[in-house]
Amino acid sequence: MLIGKIIGKVVCTAKEPKLEGTKLLIVQPLDLKYKPIGNPIVCLDSVQAGYKEIVLIVQGSSARLVTYQGNNPVDAAIIGIIDSINLDKEV
Amino acid sequence: MLIGKIIGKVVCTAKEPKLEGTKLLIVQPLDLKYKPIGNPIVCLDSVQAGYKEIVLIVQGSSARLVTYQGNNPVDAAIIGIIDSINLDKEV
Amino acid sequence: MLIGKIIGKVVCTAKEPKLEGTKLLIVQPLDLKYKPIGNPIVCLDSVQAGYKEIVLIVQGSSARLVTYQGNNPVDAAIIGIIDSINLDKEV
Amino acid sequence: MLIGKIIGKVVCTAKEPKLEGTKLLIVQPLDLKYKPIGNPIVCLDSVQAGYKEIVLIVQGSSARLVTYQGNNPVDAAIIGIIDSINLDKEV
Amino acid sequence: MLIGKIIGKVVCTAKEPKLEGTKLLIVQPLDLKYKPIGNPIVCLDSVQAGYKEIVLIVQGSSARLVTYQGNNPVDAAIIGIIDSINLDKEV
Repeated sequence: MLIGKIIGKVVCTAKEPKLEGTKLLIVQPLDLKYKPIGNPIVCLDSVQAGYKEIVLIVQGSSARLVTYQGNNPVDAAIIGIIDSINLDKEV
Repeated sequence: MLIGKIIGKVVCTAKEPKLEGTKLLIVQPLDLKYKPIGNPIVCLDSVQAGYKEIVLIVQGSSARLVTYQGNNPVDAAIIGIIDSINLDKEV
Repeated sequence: MLIGKIIGKVVCTAKEPKLEGTKLLIVQPLDLKYKPIGNPIVCLDSVQAGYKEIVLIVQGSSARLVTYQGNNPVDAAIIGIIDSINLDKEV
Repeated sequence: MLIGKIIGKVVCTAKEPKLEGTKLLIVQPLDLKYKPIGNPIVCLDSVQAGYKEIVLIVQGSSARLVTYQGNNPVDAAIIGIIDSINLDKEV
Repeated sequence: MLIGKIIGKVVCTAKEPKLEGTKLLIVQPLDLKYKPIGNPIVCLDSVQAGYKEIVLIVQGSSARLVTYQGNNPVDAAIIGIIDSINLDKEV
């Protein structure tokens, strides 16, 4: 999974029917110092995340397996809001 | 998912039988300022998108799960026509 | 999907039993001006494509879903022979 | 699969319900000389790996197939603790 | 699929139970001139390949579909030992 920050959303009127009622957020992947890496990814929100929140995103077929908003034709989903990143020996 | 612009189409006479009657569009992925990123991707159209429209594309196995033109051996599909990208706090 | 050109084939005597009788072609991915991009990919042929033909390739789990030579443990397959790439407004 | 080193963990209070009780570790992919390559990946732990241990990680849908903590919406999992990497002819 | 050379193996005592009895080989991907491209990949062996042999590797979910050692939580597998790469018109 990747760490990212929510930086916006995408609005589509004409879309795949299964996506009706979903929220499609734009997430900028970050490194461990919260610096942007790579390009933003549009993700299905399954945890009611908000603007500028640091989140955990899953990509690929697992994005369809989230409890809320699952079974959608998506390839990326937000699966957690990150409280902290611990880089010490207490794993 | 990625944001992209429709820039053309691919025509195949000899092809996988399941693709008969599908439309295969060429989509250029874009960043949030609509600048091209990476190489174009050939995508199944499932939302009747048109030339130069800004669209949302899904990659991987989820491309087979679209409502219209689903169950095809494809790895990319257009799943929405983007009206706007909002980068402010109203997510 | 990607656009590519067939540039050779791979011959394996010792191989996964399910691959017996399949043809494994080497495809060089191309951009829209037919210039090589990235490294060649070994692809299952499901449309009887020939040397130097321009083809459409699918990657990932969808490569197992082709009508002919399907259900094989492959991650790339040729699914069409491209007649033309149209970059004008007639999509 | 990739070789990596555990360098931390991610803590999420609000998260996908299926992830309750899982441990999400941060793994830095390494080359064969144990030098970092690419960006860290957040992985589900399925083998009770510890801080700074060298581990084997699997990505994609196979990350859901681990014996312990399986069937989760994740795209990366730790599947082994590496004792040694042998680069001689004894394979 | 990719072409690669076996350059070593990984030894794990503590590992995912399903991996007991499998052989995890390190494969260096190669281009068509047998020059290394990208980083080594740890692959399940399903064809009893040996040190320095040139092999064909499959990535993603298809790595679980090999006849021998199938259904394992892996994302890469060796599916053939390459006898030759033909780059002429006899495809």
